[in-house]
Amino acid sequence: MKFKMPIFQGPDFSAAALQNCPDAVSVRVTRAHVAPQYFHATTIFPEYYKINGQWTLLQKSRMDGVVVLHEDGQMEVKEFRRLAVGDRVFTGRTEDGSEGIFVHSTGFSQGEADAETFAFRTGRSRETSYSRDYDRLYELLKYEKEHGHIVWVLGPAVVFDSDSKKAMVSLIENGYVDAILAGNALATHDLEGALFQTALGQDIYTQESLANGHYHHLDVLNLAREYDSLTDFVAAKNVQDGVVAACVRSGIPMVLAGSIRDDGPLPEVIADVYESQNAMRLHSKQATTVICLATQLHSIATGNMTPAYQVIDGVVRPVFIYSVDVSEFAVNKLKDRGSLEVTSIVTNIQDFLVNIQRKLV
Amino acid sequence: MKFKMPIFQGPDFSAAALQNCPDAVSVRVTRAHVAPQYFHATTIFPEYYKINGQWTLLQKSRMDGVVVLHEDGQMEVKEFRRLAVGDRVFTGRTEDGSEGIFVHSTGFSQGEADAETFAFRTGRSRETSYSRDYDRLYELLKYEKEHGHIVWVLGPAVVFDSDSKKAMVSLIENGYVDAILAGNALATHDLEGALFQTALGQDIYTQESLANGHYHHLDVLNLAREYDSLTDFVAAKNVQDGVVAACVRSGIPMVLAGSIRDDGPLPEVIADVYESQNAMRLHSKQATTVICLATQLHSIATGNMTPAYQVIDGVVRPVFIYSVDVSEFAVNKLKDRGSLEVTSIVTNIQDFLVNIQRKLV
Amino acid sequence: MKFKMPIFQGPDFSAAALQNCPDAVSVRVTRAHVAPQYFHATTIFPEYYKINGQWTLLQKSRMDGVVVLHEDGQMEVKEFRRLAVGDRVFTGRTEDGSEGIFVHSTGFSQGEADAETFAFRTGRSRETSYSRDYDRLYELLKYEKEHGHIVWVLGPAVVFDSDSKKAMVSLIENGYVDAILAGNALATHDLEGALFQTALGQDIYTQESLANGHYHHLDVLNLAREYDSLTDFVAAKNVQDGVVAACVRSGIPMVLAGSIRDDGPLPEVIADVYESQNAMRLHSKQATTVICLATQLHSIATGNMTPAYQVIDGVVRPVFIYSVDVSEFAVNKLKDRGSLEVTSIVTNIQDFLVNIQRKLV
Amino acid sequence: MKFKMPIFQGPDFSAAALQNCPDAVSVRVTRAHVAPQYFHATTIFPEYYKINGQWTLLQKSRMDGVVVLHEDGQMEVKEFRRLAVGDRVFTGRTEDGSEGIFVHSTGFSQGEADAETFAFRTGRSRETSYSRDYDRLYELLKYEKEHGHIVWVLGPAVVFDSDSKKAMVSLIENGYVDAILAGNALATHDLEGALFQTALGQDIYTQESLANGHYHHLDVLNLAREYDSLTDFVAAKNVQDGVVAACVRSGIPMVLAGSIRDDGPLPEVIADVYESQNAMRLHSKQATTVICLATQLHSIATGNMTPAYQVIDGVVRPVFIYSVDVSEFAVNKLKDRGSLEVTSIVTNIQDFLVNIQRKLV
Repeated sequence: MKFKMPIFQGPDFSAAALQNCPDAVSVRVTRAHVAPQYFHATTIFPEYYKINGQWTLLQKSRMDGVVVLHEDGQMEVKEFRRLAVGDRVFTGRTEDGSEGIFVHSTGFSQGEADAETFAFRTGRSRETSYSRDYDRLYELLKYEKEHGHIVWVLGPAVVFDSDSKKAMVSLIENGYVDAILAGNALATHDLEGALFQTALGQDIYTQESLANGHYHHLDVLNLAREYDSLTDFVAAKNVQDGVVAACVRSGIPMVLAGSIRDDGPLPEVIADVYESQNAMRLHSKQATTVICLATQLHSIATGNMTPAYQVIDGVVRPVFIYSVDVSEFAVNKLKDRGSLEVTSIVTNIQDFLVNIQRKLV
Repeated sequence: MKFKMPIFQGPDFSAAALQNCPDAVSVRVTRAHVAPQYFHATTIFPEYYKINGQWTLLQKSRMDGVVVLHEDGQMEVKEFRRLAVGDRVFTGRTEDGSEGIFVHSTGFSQGEADAETFAFRTGRSRETSYSRDYDRLYELLKYEKEHGHIVWVLGPAVVFDSDSKKAMVSLIENGYVDAILAGNALATHDLEGALFQTALGQDIYTQESLANGHYHHLDVLNLAREYDSLTDFVAAKNVQDGVVAACVRSGIPMVLAGSIRDDGPLPEVIADVYESQNAMRLHSKQATTVICLATQLHSIATGNMTPAYQVIDGVVRPVFIYSVDVSEFAVNKLKDRGSLEVTSIVTNIQDFLVNIQRKLV
Repeated sequence: MKFKMPIFQGPDFSAAALQNCPDAVSVRVTRAHVAPQYFHATTIFPEYYKINGQWTLLQKSRMDGVVVLHEDGQMEVKEFRRLAVGDRVFTGRTEDGSEGIFVHSTGFSQGEADAETFAFRTGRSRETSYSRDYDRLYELLKYEKEHGHIVWVLGPAVVFDSDSKKAMVSLIENGYVDAILAGNALATHDLEGALFQTALGQDIYTQESLANGHYHHLDVLNLAREYDSLTDFVAAKNVQDGVVAACVRSGIPMVLAGSIRDDGPLPEVIADVYESQNAMRLHSKQATTVICLATQLHSIATGNMTPAYQVIDGVVRPVFIYSVDVSEFAVNKLKDRGSLEVTSIVTNIQDFLVNIQRKLV
Repeated sequence: MKFKMPIFQGPDFSAAALQNCPDAVSVRVTRAHVAPQYFHATTIFPEYYKINGQWTLLQKSRMDGVVVLHEDGQMEVKEFRRLAVGDRVFTGRTEDGSEGIFVHSTGFSQGEADAETFAFRTGRSRETSYSRDYDRLYELLKYEKEHGHIVWVLGPAVVFDSDSKKAMVSLIENGYVDAILAGNALATHDLEGALFQTALGQDIYTQESLANGHYHHLDVLNLAREYDSLTDFVAAKNVQDGVVAACVRSGIPMVLAGSIRDDGPLPEVIADVYESQNAMRLHSKQATTVICLATQLHSIATGNMTPAYQVIDGVVRPVFIYSVDVSEFAVNKLKDRGSLEVTSIVTNIQDFLVNIQRKLV
C-alpha cells in the first residue's frame, strides 16, 4: 500500500456565484498589535481572496491569524501581536465569497477520502483500530523523507525510556526528522540520560532510583549553563547518546521553548513565549507532516500555527498531523480545534516510537 | 539477558520463635457457605500451617480464601461459597506463627530482587520506562513456553484491531498461550471479525462503519446459537481467522464468563458467575505467568484467585502477572489489591501485542 | 426553570409513503433462542409496526431485542435467549416503513430541542459546562418524584465515601429513588461501612487503614451469609446506616447482580447473569429517568435494556439517562451506543451526589 | 471540627550529633547563572544551616533552589538563573548535618498527624473518600481568610462553566483569595464570558455553539489590546462579571503567565517565562495555602516554588497545598515531586468550587 498523495480539487471560480463576488476589503491598522474591527481570522483551510478581481490562494496560513496585504500585492498571515500601524488587514466574516473571501475546506474530500472523512468524525479512543493508521504512517514517512518536511513535537516522556529514546535517535539519523519542537524538559532529561543514564534520577532502563539521583537533573543544567549553546556543550562533554546529540550531529534544528516549569534553563531555550512561537512557526509553516508525541501544550501550540495544506511547486497538498498520547482527552484536544487532518492515536508513545522504528529503520 | 528464575528462600523453621508456635486450630463449619468465626483468610503469599507439629506449605492458594483441612491431612483453599457443613477451617488472624500460621511474603526478595522490589513500589504511569519490562517479558515468555503455564486474560479490545488480533493468533499458534480467560464480548467480536471483517459493524482495518453493520454482531450470535459449542460453529462455518478459531485448532481452552452486558450469548458462555469463577480458577491455580489485557473486570477477578507462587516439582517459584491497560487507574487496581508480583504497563494493548509478536514469533 | 416535558410529535401516517407500506412480516422460531434469518433488531427509539394495515407503536422496547407478535395481537420485545419455538418474530432491516417497520427517532427534536440536540453531539469532557445540566436535573427529579420512576445504577464508589453515602441515603428517604441496580460489591461495602465504618478496611471518613481491616469485608460477607435475605440480616444486626438499610426501610427494590469479581456473595445476589438481566429489565422497562454512577459495566448493561421513551397514560415521553463518571471514556461509552437521550457528566460521583442532595433535600 | 494548626517540632540541636557538626561551606560563583560544583539544592522542607556555629532556619525556601549567603549573614534562596558572579553559595549534598546542613522533614508529623501521614502515602484516586478533606478545607479556609495568605492557581476550565465561575467570583468577593496565578487563557475566556456569555464561542450556561462564535475569543483579545492594562479595559467596557473584574474590583493581584498556546495576548500577560516565575514566586513565597485547579502546567510550576512551611511571627507552620483535577495522573504529578503536604482531590473542579462556595459563602 504505497503512499498516494490526495489530489486537491480547487473551487470552481467559473461559477457565477464566485465570479460576481466583490473584491476583499482591507483596512489599515491604526494601533500596533490591534486589528481593525470586523477583521477576518484565518482558518487552517485553503482560503482564496479576491484582489483586483482575481481569486488568489493564501499561502503559509495558520489558525486565527489575520491577513495583511502588502504593497506588492503579496498576502502574509500575521498573528495579532505582529501587526504594525499601517498594515492593511482583510476584513469580512463570511466564508462563501460574498465579501471576497472564499474558504475551501473540502478540497481533499473526493473519492476514497469521503468514506475516510466519515470515519474520522467518530471519536478516537483506546478501542479504535489503529492498524491502517500505522500502515499509512509508515508509507507516508517514507514518502516525506524524500519529498516532504517532517516536524516532530516532543514531550519529555520520549526520553524517559531507553528504547523510545533510541528509536527517536534512529529516526533522526535515518532522515525521518526535519525539525524538533520541544521544551527545556525534553532536552534536559535527554542530556541527563546521556551523562548519567537517568532521567530525574531514575535509571531509564532499570527504573532504579539512585541515591541523590535528583542532583543529576540539576547538575546537567548547571554544567550546560557554562556554555553558550547546546552544540558547545555536546562537543565539550563529548555527548554521544540521545536526541540532542543526534540533532547536533545531523544538523537538525531544535526549537526549545521555555516554560514556567523550567529549572535552569539550558542554553538556547527561548525565554519569551512569543519568540518561541515565532521560532516554532518557521518550521510549522514549512511542515508537510507533523507528529506530536505526549505533549498537550506544544501539540496544541503547533496545531494552531500549522495550516491544513501546503503549496509545493504550485500544487496544493495536505499537511498530515499525527497526535499520539495515552489520554483520549489530550489527543482529542487537537481535533476539537477544527483540524480535520489530524490522526489521533491513543497509546503510550514509547510503543509508538518503537513500532515506527522497527518498521522503518 | 536470559530469564533467570528467582530463588525462593523459605522461612527458618529452626528459629526458636517458630519452633515454639502451637499447631494451627481448625473449627468445623456448621452452616453451609459460612466460615467459623475468626477464620483465617489466605493471602497470595506462601503460607505455612503447623499441623501435628509440622510446618506445611499451603499450595494452590488465592487471595481471601479459607483453608480446609481434609481428613487425610491435605489442605485445600476454598471460597466461602464452597464450604460444606463439617469442613474443618483454620482460624487465626496473625501471620507470625503465633497461631500456627506463618505468612512468608519475602521469600523472593533477596539479592538483585531487592532493588527491584523497591522500584516496584513507586507508581506506574505513562511516564515509566518500560524497556526493561519488555525485555524481561520476552525472555520470560520463551522460558514459560517450555516450562510454564501461561494464562491470558483478554478484554474485547484485543480483537477490535486487525494487527493485534493477528498478533494474538500468532502467539497462540506458536505455543505462548496455555489458556484464555475472557467474556462473551471477546469471542463475539472475534467471530464477527472472522465472518464479516468487522467488530460491532466497523471494519477492523479500515475503520469504516458499514451500513446496517450493527447487524453483524447480532447475526454472529444468532448463527452461533444454532450450535451447541463454538467448536461445532467454527467447523460448520469453516472459520479460519481469529482467536476463537486458533484456540479450537490448537486445543487451547477458553473460559468465557457471562456478564450482564452480554447479548446472545454465544454457546459455551457460562451464565453463572460463580461457575465462571470455578472454571477460571482451574487455570489460574496452575498459572505460572498471567497476562491481563484491557479488562478491569476479568483482570481483578483473575488476580484475586491467583497465588503469588507455585510449587513445581517441589520447588517454590513466583507467578508473574502482567497487567496492561491504557489507564493508570485500571492497571493500578490490581496492584492495590496487594499483588506485589504485578508488573503494570500503561499502554494500548494493540501496541503491546504487536511488540510481543514481532519479538517472539 | 421548572421542568417542561418535551412534546412528542408522532409520524404523519397520513403521508402517502407510509400509507402504502406493506404489513410487517413475522416468521416462526424453529429452534429455541435462535431468531429467524433477517430478523429485525429493535432500536431504543419509538418503532411502529404495520399489523393488519394499522401502524402500532411498540412499547417497553430496548436496544437489540427482537419483536414477538403474540396471538392476541400484542407485541413483546424479547432478548434472543428468551425466544421459544413457535414465536412469531418480525423480520425486516429497513426503518422507513418499506417493510412495515417505521423507526421514528426524531419525535422529541422540535423547537428548543433542536439547538440542544446539536450541542449534544459535541463531545462531553471535563471542560464542558455542566451548570444547566445540573439545573435541569434538579427540576427533573422533583417532577419524577411525583410522576415518574427513577432508577439508579450504582457503582461501589458511591459508598466508599461518607458524605456521598449519606447523600444517597437521603435521596432514598426523600422519595427520589424507585429502584437500585447494582452489584455485590456496592452492597458489601455499604454494609461494611454500616457495621465497621470502613470500606475494604479503610475508614470511610478519616481514610485510615485499620490493622487487619481487610477482614471487615470478609466478616460482613460471612455474617450476612447466615441469613437468607438482606432484610433478615439488616433486622438481625439492627443495621441503621447506609444504602442497603435505607432500601430495606423504605421498601425500595435493589437488584444485586453477581460478577466474577465477587467474594461471598451476599444473600440475594443473583448468580446467573441472564437472570440478573431479567431482574434489571423489570425496572429499566418502567424507568422514566435512569441515573448511572461510576459503573461502566452496570451502566452499559442498563443502557442496552432501556428504551428512549415510555408511554404513560397513552402519551409518549422521553426517558432521561444520566451517566456520571470521572472518566470521559466511561461516560462516552454509553453515548457511543446510540442513546441520544444520555446526558454525560464528567465528575467524581461523590460531588455529584452531594450537589444533588444539597439542592433537593 | 475547627481548624487546629499543627505544632512544629524543631530538631533537637542539643543532641551531640548536631552539636559536633561543622559549619556549612559556601563557595563563590565565578560565572553568572552557574552554581559552584557540589552546590546544595534546597528541598521544600525546613532546612537549617550552621553558620558561625549557629543553626539557622532557612526561610522563603523552594524546591531545587540554591542558598546564597549574603554579607549581612542573611540567607536567600535563589534560582540558578539568578546567580551573580561573587554570590556565596552553600555546598553539600548530605541532609543530616554532617556538612552543616540539616533537613528536617518530619517537624509536623507527631500525634494524630502520624496516622494521617500514613494514609496520605497511599494513592489518591477517584475512589478515595474525600469527605474529611472537604471538611478540613472548609475550616482551613475560614482560618486562612483571617490569618493566612491563600493563593489560587487556576486553569481555564474554571471559567468554562457558569456556576463555577460565579463560585470563584464569590470566593474572591468574600475574602478567600489573596492572589491568583493563571495564564492568558483563563483571563481571555473569563472576559469573553463577561462580554458575550460564551467561552470559545460556546455559551457557558446553555452549551450552545454560536454561529461565528469563535470570533468572540479573538474580538475580546483584540478589544483588550487597545488598552495598556486589564484594569483600564475593565473600566472602559464596564465589565462586571467574572474573575478578572472581581480581581480588579477587590484589588486582588493576578499573575498571568504567557504560554506558547496563547493568542493575543491580553495586556499584562508576561511574555518571558522566567519573569513569570519571578512574579509567581512573589506570591508563592508568602502563601500559607495554595489551591491548584485543573492546570498541570501552572500547578507544577507553583508547587516547585512553594515551600512546605512558612515562618509567621517566629512560628513555623505548614503550607497546605490542594491539587484538584479530574485526572489521577495530573494530581499525582504534584505529589510525585516530593511535596508531602499536598492533598489531591480527583474531581471536576466545577463541583469542587460549587461545593466550597455553598459551604463558605
